Amino acid sequence: MQNTFGNLFRITTFGESHGTAIGCVVDGCPAGLEIDLDFIQSQNNRRKPGQSTITTQRNESDTVEILSGVFEGKSTGAPIALLIKNKDAHSADYDHLKDAYRPGHADYTWEKKYGIRDHRGGGRSSARETAARVAGGAIAQLLLKSLGVEIYAYVQQVYTEAVPVGYDVLDLSSIDNSIVRCPHLETAAKMIALIEQAKTDGDSLGGYVRGVVKGMPAGWGEPVFDKLPALLGHGLLSINAVKGIAFGDGFESALLKGSQHNDSFYTNENGTVRTNTNHAGGTLGGISNGEDIIFTLAFKPTATIMQSQSSINTQNEPITLEGKGRHDPCVLPRAVPIVEAMTALVLADCYLMSKTNRLAI
Amino acid sequence: MQNTFGNLFRITTFGESHGTAIGCVVDGCPAGLEIDLDFIQSQNNRRKPGQSTITTQRNESDTVEILSGVFEGKSTGAPIALLIKNKDAHSADYDHLKDAYRPGHADYTWEKKYGIRDHRGGGRSSARETAARVAGGAIAQLLLKSLGVEIYAYVQQVYTEAVPVGYDVLDLSSIDNSIVRCPHLETAAKMIALIEQAKTDGDSLGGYVRGVVKGMPAGWGEPVFDKLPALLGHGLLSINAVKGIAFGDGFESALLKGSQHNDSFYTNENGTVRTNTNHAGGTLGGISNGEDIIFTLAFKPTATIMQSQSSINTQNEPITLEGKGRHDPCVLPRAVPIVEAMTALVLADCYLMSKTNRLAI
Amino acid sequence: MQNTFGNLFRITTFGESHGTAIGCVVDGCPAGLEIDLDFIQSQNNRRKPGQSTITTQRNESDTVEILSGVFEGKSTGAPIALLIKNKDAHSADYDHLKDAYRPGHADYTWEKKYGIRDHRGGGRSSARETAARVAGGAIAQLLLKSLGVEIYAYVQQVYTEAVPVGYDVLDLSSIDNSIVRCPHLETAAKMIALIEQAKTDGDSLGGYVRGVVKGMPAGWGEPVFDKLPALLGHGLLSINAVKGIAFGDGFESALLKGSQHNDSFYTNENGTVRTNTNHAGGTLGGISNGEDIIFTLAFKPTATIMQSQSSINTQNEPITLEGKGRHDPCVLPRAVPIVEAMTALVLADCYLMSKTNRLAI
Amino acid sequence: MQNTFGNLFRITTFGESHGTAIGCVVDGCPAGLEIDLDFIQSQNNRRKPGQSTITTQRNESDTVEILSGVFEGKSTGAPIALLIKNKDAHSADYDHLKDAYRPGHADYTWEKKYGIRDHRGGGRSSARETAARVAGGAIAQLLLKSLGVEIYAYVQQVYTEAVPVGYDVLDLSSIDNSIVRCPHLETAAKMIALIEQAKTDGDSLGGYVRGVVKGMPAGWGEPVFDKLPALLGHGLLSINAVKGIAFGDGFESALLKGSQHNDSFYTNENGTVRTNTNHAGGTLGGISNGEDIIFTLAFKPTATIMQSQSSINTQNEPITLEGKGRHDPCVLPRAVPIVEAMTALVLADCYLMSKTNRLAI
Repeated sequence: MQNTFGNLFRITTFGESHGTAIGCVVDGCPAGLEIDLDFIQSQNNRRKPGQSTITTQRNESDTVEILSGVFEGKSTGAPIALLIKNKDAHSADYDHLKDAYRPGHADYTWEKKYGIRDHRGGGRSSARETAARVAGGAIAQLLLKSLGVEIYAYVQQVYTEAVPVGYDVLDLSSIDNSIVRCPHLETAAKMIALIEQAKTDGDSLGGYVRGVVKGMPAGWGEPVFDKLPALLGHGLLSINAVKGIAFGDGFESALLKGSQHNDSFYTNENGTVRTNTNHAGGTLGGISNGEDIIFTLAFKPTATIMQSQSSINTQNEPITLEGKGRHDPCVLPRAVPIVEAMTALVLADCYLMSKTNRLAI
Repeated sequence: MQNTFGNLFRITTFGESHGTAIGCVVDGCPAGLEIDLDFIQSQNNRRKPGQSTITTQRNESDTVEILSGVFEGKSTGAPIALLIKNKDAHSADYDHLKDAYRPGHADYTWEKKYGIRDHRGGGRSSARETAARVAGGAIAQLLLKSLGVEIYAYVQQVYTEAVPVGYDVLDLSSIDNSIVRCPHLETAAKMIALIEQAKTDGDSLGGYVRGVVKGMPAGWGEPVFDKLPALLGHGLLSINAVKGIAFGDGFESALLKGSQHNDSFYTNENGTVRTNTNHAGGTLGGISNGEDIIFTLAFKPTATIMQSQSSINTQNEPITLEGKGRHDPCVLPRAVPIVEAMTALVLADCYLMSKTNRLAI
Repeated sequence: MQNTFGNLFRITTFGESHGTAIGCVVDGCPAGLEIDLDFIQSQNNRRKPGQSTITTQRNESDTVEILSGVFEGKSTGAPIALLIKNKDAHSADYDHLKDAYRPGHADYTWEKKYGIRDHRGGGRSSARETAARVAGGAIAQLLLKSLGVEIYAYVQQVYTEAVPVGYDVLDLSSIDNSIVRCPHLETAAKMIALIEQAKTDGDSLGGYVRGVVKGMPAGWGEPVFDKLPALLGHGLLSINAVKGIAFGDGFESALLKGSQHNDSFYTNENGTVRTNTNHAGGTLGGISNGEDIIFTLAFKPTATIMQSQSSINTQNEPITLEGKGRHDPCVLPRAVPIVEAMTALVLADCYLMSKTNRLAI
Repeated sequence: MQNTFGNLFRITTFGESHGTAIGCVVDGCPAGLEIDLDFIQSQNNRRKPGQSTITTQRNESDTVEILSGVFEGKSTGAPIALLIKNKDAHSADYDHLKDAYRPGHADYTWEKKYGIRDHRGGGRSSARETAARVAGGAIAQLLLKSLGVEIYAYVQQVYTEAVPVGYDVLDLSSIDNSIVRCPHLETAAKMIALIEQAKTDGDSLGGYVRGVVKGMPAGWGEPVFDKLPALLGHGLLSINAVKGIAFGDGFESALLKGSQHNDSFYTNENGTVRTNTNHAGGTLGGISNGEDIIFTLAFKPTATIMQSQSSINTQNEPITLEGKGRHDPCVLPRAVPIVEAMTALVLADCYLMSKTNRLAI
């Protein structure tokens, strides 16, 4: 609930955009896992601001410190606390927002909910919170890697520019070869051009991120309320700016008939049960079937823009807001590791739950 | 977890398609709520099989019995148990499926997960389980109605036929005027024709259901992992056959720039804060802003079809499955009350949580 | 929370003393467990009213029906719903209590909490609710038996009569040889005489129940907040009338010095690690060490007595309450299976959790 | 679960005895609460080592830092992270324990559970973890104080020396007037003498802590599994070295008849419902009745002693352990703020839950 996610493999995050630090506590990680801090840091480096010309210029190293739960390089079963100190907070940039409600932001709703609001950099509602998720999610990724499960995410579309081919013909190891994190280089170049133009215009763009999970065992996900797509939906829709999620053929499924959409089973040469197609995106009845998990996320354009907008202040009077401060013209390149993190957290949880499904034989 | 949904307002469902009964326990309902059994039954009547020519012909009255938690017509704070007995189960129709894995169904994944499977009518993986959700969700709806919050769902698209206008120009009180539960009667007629053709062909169709919540207070939803869209996503993606969800402009959001997508605030003549547009679909930073909640769900075509399909048996050998038994050529008309139920369960939970957000003044 | 107990192996109970039925939903039971309905019924028979001359004369068969979750005699991983219909409710006996608050009962506190109260037989606050726990707990016991873990409870003390020897010199298979469920027959006879005298006097008695768990593996229980004694304490203190719990030497521990209380380790002839003494009662740092779990519960005397008492009514005016209806002069004989049930529920949960503690080797 | 405690008001703790830091995340604290860091620190000062001649000499300032969730001195509804750095860890003192299992400690059970163990200072199983609880619990205490609820704990008994009078004739504001935290000064002096002798002997002592809560509203606690004594039992039995808990008359209840134990109601001059006695210790049916909550906790003697003991090593071979390092001859004086903290956490949770019990009027 609230700031904790997961049932058995859980993270609890804390921290505000302009506070002392952000961080998380990872609880339920099985003992004996090698905790590779370099991998954790590398995922946070992919999320951190200032990493390229098309992201916000806030300058944070986002160095991850491990405070607990690791002994001689391995998890002990104790909670793993991870800390990231804030350094380059320009709180003064936000003074003019103390009494204003920015369109598209959580200023108004947070104040209606809590009656108090840390306006500096958006406080707790800032996407800076996701740095803690990336750090915690990286530990889930390490657990999954040890089981042969690999998670990929990439930018599928920015505004009107979309990758014209399926994930299965892309080289997923090349996602980071472009700063926009699109493995189709021709499309990547067009995306970058769109983002640079938006930046020049003081405007912002949205798009789609695609997620792919390979090496999935069959049998993960709970059959009723905690179907695998339901849990992934919960986790991924909790990422700032996400407005939709679709699994497998998603919204296109509706345009197929049952006789076309059903993925027929066969047994391959190794005796493994497979399906001839994967319209379903890797789950049946909410439980993984061993095929790749595939989903697509829609991100709205960044709410912060460098243009003047009409709004109201905390006395509900009309005001004009000027665009000031630093902003991301398009969050998608930095969203990629966040999507991986939330996916990993869900799957690690499902893995642990699956260990309790049946009597030991 | 598993068969329980919600944190403070919770339901736990039980029962299989061909067992003795299905039902649910509603826990956390505040004391003092008038429990209108007629309303609960009317929602289950909208979900029950055999209600029209375009649904499955299984004949169940789906009569809801209240076993506990209600005294002199009101909730007491004790758990409310609701029971629906199964009557028209034709288990023999499923004998040929005992050793088969049906494409698009949970037979294979359930067996991989649990090593045992009640094959009769799909057992626990049958959408019959949702009758319990509708009954429990109706109590959540009663709670929300007492607060002025009204939930609507309707069929927006079947296969290629879509309602050509927005929900705001439709008469939402007329949803049940057509058996397909589409309030745009011209489109409804076309949808029915499509479904009847699919039935004749032994095939099935999917489509979209749109959800609308009116009368929302600002301040519901938790700002990090339990954002309102995340909780709705969890609940709604747990409905059988749902493959995607989108809020507000959803996947179209990506095609707007930030300057176009941001919903600007104003104060209306009553002093209420409103937005000029509602691209966001009623939430900001995961918290309701008082505008209508709007979402769209994609349903895949029903997995059960009356055509022969290639598959495998439990020895992983190839087989041909014949289409037999009863089926829904399109589940969307019956899905409408299920969507309302899951929406209500999420919102009732958020309402209760919102009572703990701040110090009493 | 509220009417659900457990994390992975969970029960949700429902029902009032004079409602249609009581029951529970068992969720998280691993698939493949043989569900022995005779055992479940036998545990409920040990709890049911009217079983002997020293218990209340309410006449209930407490027949347990399984509604779901079992297929061909085995658990399927789906929730197991258990139903017990109420039959011999004499609601008219309680008419005089509609506007009264009985001393020692939950009438007043329930009304302050909820503003509404089902006064018939105590409604939801009646210990009749524990019949559902016994049924659900019996399934946990079946799971534990399959692992070699055996749970015993017996009456250690009634009022001033206590078993003069330790559990290790008693024949725990003989607990049901006396109607008071005390395996030390000489003491049992004295206890029965005390209870019969209390019945004659219209008064009631309390006492102690001792719990013993044999065959415990080392490693169950979570080391911080969910220490095994903490979870057992939670479950056992939730039983009506329990006022205290102590583990191992319990309150006597304080009268030993550390050099006396520490249980020293040794390795036995089979290479198993054991302790020379068991002052700790089977746990160290909240985790089982493989020795027998031992605890003692204090029960207050039954609140219902057949004597007149001064009290107040719902207008807060003084009244005199007459003793009417049926009552248990001493609840301890019937509490034995309830204690076993709650112990089993905690241990089954800890067992499932222990499967997620470390990486598979 | 595991390292998180509470449902609505929750803490998640982390950290080991000899790690970088320990700390906790407080989630669910209502917005608008004044966060008095001086009070938090004062509670930690009461728990910290080295505070007097009768406690361990480890020298830690246990300075609490607030990392998040507080803005302009008030809670914002965001999680409050609290950090305490470790300074005076003498890990080398524990080198000889790397391969040994200390009697009375969690070394053996932790290794059986997780297969890996941070032996330095007991790692996560050290009572040093409770510093985080004290810090988080202090915030719960601030919330409760704002509601007029005051929590007291004091040392009732050390080994054979007990306070000879009830809490109601003691001056609870004088608890800290003695280093042993017993408000009965004559008894306090005897307790101190006992502890000093145990220290000289290299031995350790246990005893009883009594808890008292004043200013309780009626209606807190949930009526079935989450009865107030059950939740308090869970929280308090999770404190290191606690072996028993009793409410009100506790184990003495069994020696009263129902006609003696029932607390009769009356209405006082202010129209408030009260009971003439308080044998029950402030709850009826698991729900607070407005009388003082009273409980007693049994602590075993400290496991660490400065004497040689026989034990086994990690190869299960017999060894003799020498007493080395620093130790508390009696943990009770330092346990007082821990007891207050866990009590406050439970009550804050119950308070928030009670806000959802009934429809707003």
